[in-house]
Amino acid sequence: MSTSSNLINKAVDQLSRFPGVGKKSALRMALFLLKKEEMDTVELSQALITMRTEIKFCKQCYNISDAELCNVCNSPSKDQSVVCVVKDFQDVLAIENTGQYNGLFHVLGGLVSPVDGIGPSDIKIPELLSRVEKGEITEAILALSSTLEGDTTEYYIAKKLRAIGLKVSTLSKGIAVGGELEYADEMTLARSIRNRVNLEE
Amino acid sequence: MSTSSNLINKAVDQLSRFPGVGKKSALRMALFLLKKEEMDTVELSQALITMRTEIKFCKQCYNISDAELCNVCNSPSKDQSVVCVVKDFQDVLAIENTGQYNGLFHVLGGLVSPVDGIGPSDIKIPELLSRVEKGEITEAILALSSTLEGDTTEYYIAKKLRAIGLKVSTLSKGIAVGGELEYADEMTLARSIRNRVNLEE
Repeated sequence: MSTSSNLINKAVDQLSRFPGVGKKSALRMALFLLKKEEMDTVELSQALITMRTEIKFCKQCYNISDAELCNVCNSPSKDQSVVCVVKDFQDVLAIENTGQYNGLFHVLGGLVSPVDGIGPSDIKIPELLSRVEKGEITEAILALSSTLEGDTTEYYIAKKLRAIGLKVSTLSKGIAVGGELEYADEMTLARSIRNRVNLEE
Repeated sequence: MSTSSNLINKAVDQLSRFPGVGKKSALRMALFLLKKEEMDTVELSQALITMRTEIKFCKQCYNISDAELCNVCNSPSKDQSVVCVVKDFQDVLAIENTGQYNGLFHVLGGLVSPVDGIGPSDIKIPELLSRVEKGEITEAILALSSTLEGDTTEYYIAKKLRAIGLKVSTLSKGIAVGGELEYADEMTLARSIRNRVNLEE
């Protein structure tokens, strides 16, 4: 699906790098821009470049941020005694959007992965520990993926945090809400039976 | 699905203008750029702006083009006696990709639509007629959408071109290849029965 215009082909190549965008969608996007005013393309490009160059990382929790401190760390309404440890800023977004959590975050920026040569000090674990040692935080929720790397990282952090005296918890594992039982994998199903929850009367 | 970062929100607003891109996909695209090098975002933006500002319209067929004449008009291997009349440059692309057509194109840039106040001279019909009057073109294929506007435009152009002495044809209408008969609409099915094709022995 290549056009006779090199200008379009180059734009399509760039657009199709986006996750979930194939050559065909990218071409549709390029043609969409061609039908709109030149100013629209300029505004789009400027918004992307401004975002990419001006975004900062919060100096306390390493979440992406427009300022020195991110909106979560800066909010007086957040519970300053709980920290939720996540891998990525996307996880912060996902958890914030649940509306079920009102504490702080700590973004690791990766997971411990011996296979890839990523050790605890290659991600923001030392920063987490020194942040916790200041004493204000009393509880940590480890919200990491349920993968080998996630479990390794969780194990490591949990040990360290418990040694400092924190209450440490992890996300509950089980079948997805709205999910069909028959499509749940064995491991998940087994875990959800073991961690079954009493129904309240 | 709005983030705490205005920089990201602005980029998401811009990206979600693309057809088929919702807020959630746009956010995924923005986060993707944040994870990549700054240079990647700059290259993407430059490709889009360069495409939008440097693209030209072929002075003969009004197809989008990198140069004065588009690649189709410029190609010596194309049959210069046939012209395929289409609405948009996307249609040129779609027909070129079939590999079944080896003639020239003429891009109208719209369809006659009395309701919207678009008359024959508001689109590239006068240009088509003067192009045809030069005498080299002897056949025209009208490849317009099978809508009220498409049919109106087709009727108008066919009359004009026949008056000049051209052989005029239109795309065959019928059920889609690979399409289930039961999902074809009545009009299409009726047309495909009326225009049935003899099976060769």
